[in-house]
Amino acid sequence: MTDILFTHDAGNSLRDLSDKNQHSGIYILYPEQSGDLLLQTLNAGDLVENATHIPLPEGEHHKSIETATDIWRTLLDKNANRNSIIVNLGGGMTTDIGGFAASCYMRGIRYINIPTTLLACVDAAYGGKTGINLMEVKNVVGAFHKPMSTIVSPQFLVTLPERELLSGWAEMLKHALLSSEADTVRLIETDPRDLSEAEWLPLIEQSVNVKRNIVDLDPLEKGIRRMLNLGHTAGHAIESLMLSREGMAITHGHAVAIGLVTALVLSSLHCGFDSTMLHRYASRIRELYPPVQIKCADYSQLLSSMHHDKKNRSSDSITFALLTAPGVPAPPTPMPDSEICSALDITRDLLGI
Amino acid sequence: MTDILFTHDAGNSLRDLSDKNQHSGIYILYPEQSGDLLLQTLNAGDLVENATHIPLPEGEHHKSIETATDIWRTLLDKNANRNSIIVNLGGGMTTDIGGFAASCYMRGIRYINIPTTLLACVDAAYGGKTGINLMEVKNVVGAFHKPMSTIVSPQFLVTLPERELLSGWAEMLKHALLSSEADTVRLIETDPRDLSEAEWLPLIEQSVNVKRNIVDLDPLEKGIRRMLNLGHTAGHAIESLMLSREGMAITHGHAVAIGLVTALVLSSLHCGFDSTMLHRYASRIRELYPPVQIKCADYSQLLSSMHHDKKNRSSDSITFALLTAPGVPAPPTPMPDSEICSALDITRDLLGI
Repeated sequence: MTDILFTHDAGNSLRDLSDKNQHSGIYILYPEQSGDLLLQTLNAGDLVENATHIPLPEGEHHKSIETATDIWRTLLDKNANRNSIIVNLGGGMTTDIGGFAASCYMRGIRYINIPTTLLACVDAAYGGKTGINLMEVKNVVGAFHKPMSTIVSPQFLVTLPERELLSGWAEMLKHALLSSEADTVRLIETDPRDLSEAEWLPLIEQSVNVKRNIVDLDPLEKGIRRMLNLGHTAGHAIESLMLSREGMAITHGHAVAIGLVTALVLSSLHCGFDSTMLHRYASRIRELYPPVQIKCADYSQLLSSMHHDKKNRSSDSITFALLTAPGVPAPPTPMPDSEICSALDITRDLLGI
Repeated sequence: MTDILFTHDAGNSLRDLSDKNQHSGIYILYPEQSGDLLLQTLNAGDLVENATHIPLPEGEHHKSIETATDIWRTLLDKNANRNSIIVNLGGGMTTDIGGFAASCYMRGIRYINIPTTLLACVDAAYGGKTGINLMEVKNVVGAFHKPMSTIVSPQFLVTLPERELLSGWAEMLKHALLSSEADTVRLIETDPRDLSEAEWLPLIEQSVNVKRNIVDLDPLEKGIRRMLNLGHTAGHAIESLMLSREGMAITHGHAVAIGLVTALVLSSLHCGFDSTMLHRYASRIRELYPPVQIKCADYSQLLSSMHHDKKNRSSDSITFALLTAPGVPAPPTPMPDSEICSALDITRDLLGI
């Protein structure tokens, strides 16, 4: 099982890990443009100076087999071997591609994740899912390969713009919904823009633990882990839709926040989920996130995306992760297109879009 | 644990597997030029007609990330999903790269190996090691991902030229040396060029089981599995040396057969391995395999190759898998260059080269 270290000093934790585990060298991967800021915030002293640095090009289209191959070439060139350790310092793109590179280099070497975005802290950095995109399909090439440790520290959150913070917040809302009514209410009543570093840490820890409990029950995603897909069926489709419109792209979490509304609408219509809770959740989303333009004319594109999602086994209907109540999963529920369109109508009503 | 089916009718076994395991489609990979002959020899009827065919370019330089990426593109293009099954029909290159493609597609889908060379039957098809080459380093990118089944049948051996048969025979000799004195003597006294299909099957089964027992004890190669490297430290170096000479390339097995002599020489000098057995083994190799040109002037290139082998943890000395007797491993033994040169001298004497 992966060790997760919750701390306010990631640099110190990294030095500790490096001292306590035999290795033949540290190879540190980070996004090229924000690398200096992240390394400075990490504050790991000599360790960073003595490590081999592998800056990565930024942008989702660089989460590619070409970037992974460049990483492997550099590792070979700089004599990385089976005893080397890779450190991924960055957001989900860095931990996904760095984890993939580690999982295939010499058939798998050790790696440590230091997520620097809220989204990566609560979502990408645990679970051992690694991957790259191919032919515009996200994470279609990848591996399950767990990091030896994940170091989670809110010290990096000050480096984030508000939209990135809100993106991660949506995954925390999802974890709360998968956990309990009390957690759900607590997060709905919290404003993520007002939290201090000291307040962040226990909230993040609690959120990561929800994910950890689910992943540990089902590491290879054969059953209950699919619940982590809550909000993502509609969310991914909305993310793709907005990406296809010049200058209208929204963050992953923003799309998931809307997708969660759609999932709760379906849960309310088909699985007895409390409609008052649905309304409370939807109003909060409406306050926190800017409105997006979704029209009836977009439904066919949204449905087509959902039908092509790799997590849909059947192409006739779309299977949603739904809840009967906060913390209580409903069985995987296939939905005909007509029901999904109704749920999208109600989603737009609730969000005033 | 992987299921290994020993049979004289691989087509029938494949049909059985396809019928008994739920799946959403079969994707069959094979070497482009010998594909027709292999598919005809397989004789799996409708199953092959209904499968999606993915012919692979031949030659070690095509065991590359580019070929793997082409496979992933075709899988995506032809709608392969998590319930699809890949069938690798071919030699070690096909099973290595096809297994790697399967291990990373959607983070791992099922695959079946049908090895068609003797080398692949006894070596590549079991153990879950998959991989591709990068920057001329063999299998440096790969994964441990076991096939759901390996179908081993001697029906394909008639498609092989004698040098390919002898290449596989060297790995069988290695397995016999790792197994017992009786097995070693039996194989030394057998001529692989005279065997019937009926005689091949039990010999192959016995050889595969030696490897299986070792792999199952140590699936991730942390200890005893390194004994499967017997003969490969010098063998890989000799293979590379000959490859670097225009028109002089020898088969992997031929190089291993010579590398085994070197390993037994070192075993005899340092671990008490019986020198009579060494001489019997070496004379047999001299009879079966054509002589190669190795001179004192080549030693520095051979040593340099051995120092760069990914299985060597230290660069100061080279660690050999050695035996105290047939079936009895010696502890991993680091050797200074001077001892290796002496062993190469004796190897050349014994082989008359």
